[in-house]
Amino acid sequence: MVKIMARISAKVGTADQLQEVLKALVRSTRNEPGCVSYELFQDEENFLEFVTIEHWANNQAAEAHMTTPHVAEAFAKAAGLLAKPPSINRFTQII
Amino acid sequence: MVKIMARISAKVGTADQLQEVLKALVRSTRNEPGCVSYELFQDEENFLEFVTIEHWANNQAAEAHMTTPHVAEAFAKAAGLLAKPPSINRFTQII
Repeated sequence: MVKIMARISAKVGTADQLQEVLKALVRSTRNEPGCVSYELFQDEENFLEFVTIEHWANNQAAEAHMTTPHVAEAFAKAAGLLAKPPSINRFTQII
Repeated sequence: MVKIMARISAKVGTADQLQEVLKALVRSTRNEPGCVSYELFQDEENFLEFVTIEHWANNQAAEAHMTTPHVAEAFAKAAGLLAKPPSINRFTQII
């Protein structure tokens, strides 16, 4: 199992646009083989901050995801909306 | 539903000790009323970085959690092990 969390920061005034880009990405990604779950969250106190939590069956599925057209499209559409590059980390569940 | 994510950074050399403190906290917390789930993760590339993901049935349960003896004990035991104050944020699930 592979768990990936990404922190994604919108530029001021672009949170709604970025949310739409991320929602489209989540919908397409959930149809990929090996995608156990893919969830999108928004910080309650700072609407500019999003987090995605991805859960993949294995490494191959997580890596194949990065080569899909919907990821390329999301990166292209989000390029002008991000306050900084997304911070993407892999995690091991301890308990 | 209330979703809370915390980022917790260990001082160099204290990751294993901090992990034990957090595991004890998770085990006790899972027995609280209103705790839907409580998971502990460690960054695969930086073992000093932990994330907890808490899922509560409602606000009251999330707030009652902060007043429990096991939270007080975890704060006391973790005090000397943290590289910086934990970053704790509440999130709304978008999709």
